[in-house]
Amino acid sequence: MPYIALEDHLPGITGLLEYSKGTAQPIRDLTQFLLRGPSTLTEAERELIATVVSYGNECTFCTTAHTAAADLLSGESQTAEKVKQNIDTAPVSKKMKALLTIASLTRQSGKSVTSDIVQKAKDAGATDIEIHDTVLIAALFCLYNRYVDGLGTALPADPAYYNVLADRLVNHGYTRLPQGYNHLKK
Amino acid sequence: MPYIALEDHLPGITGLLEYSKGTAQPIRDLTQFLLRGPSTLTEAERELIATVVSYGNECTFCTTAHTAAADLLSGESQTAEKVKQNIDTAPVSKKMKALLTIASLTRQSGKSVTSDIVQKAKDAGATDIEIHDTVLIAALFCLYNRYVDGLGTALPADPAYYNVLADRLVNHGYTRLPQGYNHLKK
Repeated sequence: MPYIALEDHLPGITGLLEYSKGTAQPIRDLTQFLLRGPSTLTEAERELIATVVSYGNECTFCTTAHTAAADLLSGESQTAEKVKQNIDTAPVSKKMKALLTIASLTRQSGKSVTSDIVQKAKDAGATDIEIHDTVLIAALFCLYNRYVDGLGTALPADPAYYNVLADRLVNHGYTRLPQGYNHLKK
Repeated sequence: MPYIALEDHLPGITGLLEYSKGTAQPIRDLTQFLLRGPSTLTEAERELIATVVSYGNECTFCTTAHTAAADLLSGESQTAEKVKQNIDTAPVSKKMKALLTIASLTRQSGKSVTSDIVQKAKDAGATDIEIHDTVLIAALFCLYNRYVDGLGTALPADPAYYNVLADRLVNHGYTRLPQGYNHLKK
């Protein structure tokens, strides 16, 4: 049971975004810009960063939701799973391995990111903007994971919920749902 | 030296907000709403939450900046210092002790926040919205601290910089500075 009075048909982050609309708007805008805005990283790659961070923070709601989004975007379910288990041996490019490692270190602490790992990413072709966005996406999911778990939000009763949510995140993005779009019940 | 090419006269978060304006706007909006918007928590209390989290994350830039802002708002420099050393014995209300403890736990992990500490805050008079805002401010500073340190931003050369910054945060808020407001050099 959540620590504050949230609508009980809205699990995880969804009840919080409904509870506090004044903070929801900039959180949605930031996420939309970072995960769906113009970028040389694909949307699937950016969802992998969100997944790795949420998994490291043991946030079940966010991990499951962003794994489902990454899977839907990439059309397969091997990469996200393997990245969660071991970045070094996962089937992603050298550049993505370095960026995902930067994301994991950022998750632990900003101070854990070293010039060596940043150089490794640059040597593998990562641009300054890609490194910037990787750190900020990781930092944003450190916010999300704490927001979702720190207020004791509920998980969806039906695991199929995450597929509906992933479909929304892939086809609609992180902006506010239009009125009447109410099939995201747990 | 920062890990990416930031303007070298802009230390800490300031260079990042200039580097990436598309993400800066929602980050500024979220911070302004949470730390300066209508609330039953004073601005000084909200700056104390930011301070405790930044201190726990060992982020020198954010800790010094928000300590200076909390001091300026409260008109003294004892409370922020004592809260950083020991929340339980600091000269703040029972409600603030519980909320600052919730913030510290959120900093460690969202999963560290327990129903017991939330109940303690409620017993001391904290409302749902105050608990919500405490968790989200703590989560937001987990983002800031990682953003600032994860990209290796520079500290200001002159410690007096923090007083200028605090003056700006107290009298102008977290929104974008007007053109020509350029005395925030390090």
